[in-house]
Amino acid sequence: MRVLVNISYLGTHFMGFQIQQHERTIQQQFERILKRMHKRPIRIHPTSRTDRGVHAYEQFFHFDTELNITPEKWRYAMNSALPNDILVKAVSFVDDSFHCRYDCVGKSYRYKAYVAEERDPFQSGLRTHIKESLNYDKMNEAAAKFIGTHDFTGFCSQKTEVDSKVRTIYQSEIIQTEDGFDYVVTGSGFLYNMVRVLVAFLVEVGKGHRSPEEVPSLLEARNRSNVPFTAAADGLYLEHIYLSEQSLIQDFGEDIKIHRKKSLQND
Amino acid sequence: MRVLVNISYLGTHFMGFQIQQHERTIQQQFERILKRMHKRPIRIHPTSRTDRGVHAYEQFFHFDTELNITPEKWRYAMNSALPNDILVKAVSFVDDSFHCRYDCVGKSYRYKAYVAEERDPFQSGLRTHIKESLNYDKMNEAAAKFIGTHDFTGFCSQKTEVDSKVRTIYQSEIIQTEDGFDYVVTGSGFLYNMVRVLVAFLVEVGKGHRSPEEVPSLLEARNRSNVPFTAAADGLYLEHIYLSEQSLIQDFGEDIKIHRKKSLQND
Repeated sequence: MRVLVNISYLGTHFMGFQIQQHERTIQQQFERILKRMHKRPIRIHPTSRTDRGVHAYEQFFHFDTELNITPEKWRYAMNSALPNDILVKAVSFVDDSFHCRYDCVGKSYRYKAYVAEERDPFQSGLRTHIKESLNYDKMNEAAAKFIGTHDFTGFCSQKTEVDSKVRTIYQSEIIQTEDGFDYVVTGSGFLYNMVRVLVAFLVEVGKGHRSPEEVPSLLEARNRSNVPFTAAADGLYLEHIYLSEQSLIQDFGEDIKIHRKKSLQND
Repeated sequence: MRVLVNISYLGTHFMGFQIQQHERTIQQQFERILKRMHKRPIRIHPTSRTDRGVHAYEQFFHFDTELNITPEKWRYAMNSALPNDILVKAVSFVDDSFHCRYDCVGKSYRYKAYVAEERDPFQSGLRTHIKESLNYDKMNEAAAKFIGTHDFTGFCSQKTEVDSKVRTIYQSEIIQTEDGFDYVVTGSGFLYNMVRVLVAFLVEVGKGHRSPEEVPSLLEARNRSNVPFTAAADGLYLEHIYLSEQSLIQDFGEDIKIHRKKSLQND
């Protein structure tokens, strides 16, 4: 039986998703519980391996089990054993051919920042503090230029090891908030540190240090040295996971080019 | 020169205020900075030693210095060296006779809780999760019965070591919020765990397990076993410090009995 689990977590106190020896990670929390229930190690497979400090409003993983437990009881059993900063929102059974990593056709991230002269200690870990006032129109203009299919070599960590750095961006917009902005980006997948590099670039545009017109040539150049900053992990939230092409078409229209995930690695 | 510092902090990642070997505490953060600036150890004296996980919207400490630095430069120097979860809000010079502990005539705490079937991971550390629906009128009725001068032996940790457990409560009220309540309590001082024991009792009243009418006899009994629960530190915020009798009279009227702090210890 393949079990699909929809979770949410505050990333602040985790060393990311992926299991690491002696570290508090999301995977470690779940595998510890599942091992106890199965009396043997159980591997979980997420749609996304979020980094240290990154939050998730929605994240999925699957695992295989021989235990005869209803979805509602799985949810209850896991929530009872989990710490306060993780929640299992829903559990369902899926076909054995379903795979969280390969069937994920899109992801949305939200990056939250506030602009203020002084930092607010109560935002620490949740939203990033920016001191300078920003031009949100310029930022949004630049953000829109990432929509489409591009090679993002110039906008990811140089440590990224994948066959192709081509990704399709369906949505990329700056949403002004009461005291700052949210950046919402939906794509077929994201390279290592890609969202944080995009945000850092957009903030530079907002400050007037860079211009929206540079985007096409920066994409073309495929050189990370041109875009040297990476925004803090603090404000980054995995917000939505698209597990079917239908849901992606519903949100972004018939015309979008669907990027098949089976051809992508390590997102 | 005696320097008075007004600070704010997210308590989540601190092992409380007071310095402890090898632990991240508020005092340790400031004494580390002050030692570097003075080239010798400097002791700071707070109005309140908050526990592990307890937050502060307002907290004061003082220290003595021979350095010739303006208040605005002190504020800037400390904020530049502090982590994101502490903020120095203001710095001023005070008379050498002023002492943060002895001149504090009152403190307000706010305890935040939300009521929901499921916990919200993003509230973890900030507000306490309560599953059961609560009767806020009953809670407020009980809360009001703590106002006045009472012996709080029955409502503090049995580890509390002070000469007198008599404290004066000026304000004690339940404020209903969109999805739960805040409990706001102002008093001459608070015994160890006192606010968290009061909250735990009020939640029991809200659930219908205890009644407001019990308060006088529970105070009279001076027996902690009658009030066995302690609410989590998560939702507790030190909100306001009264450093003068005038400010206390301004908020609570001419008729209040001012409790002189010099007669109290270890608050």
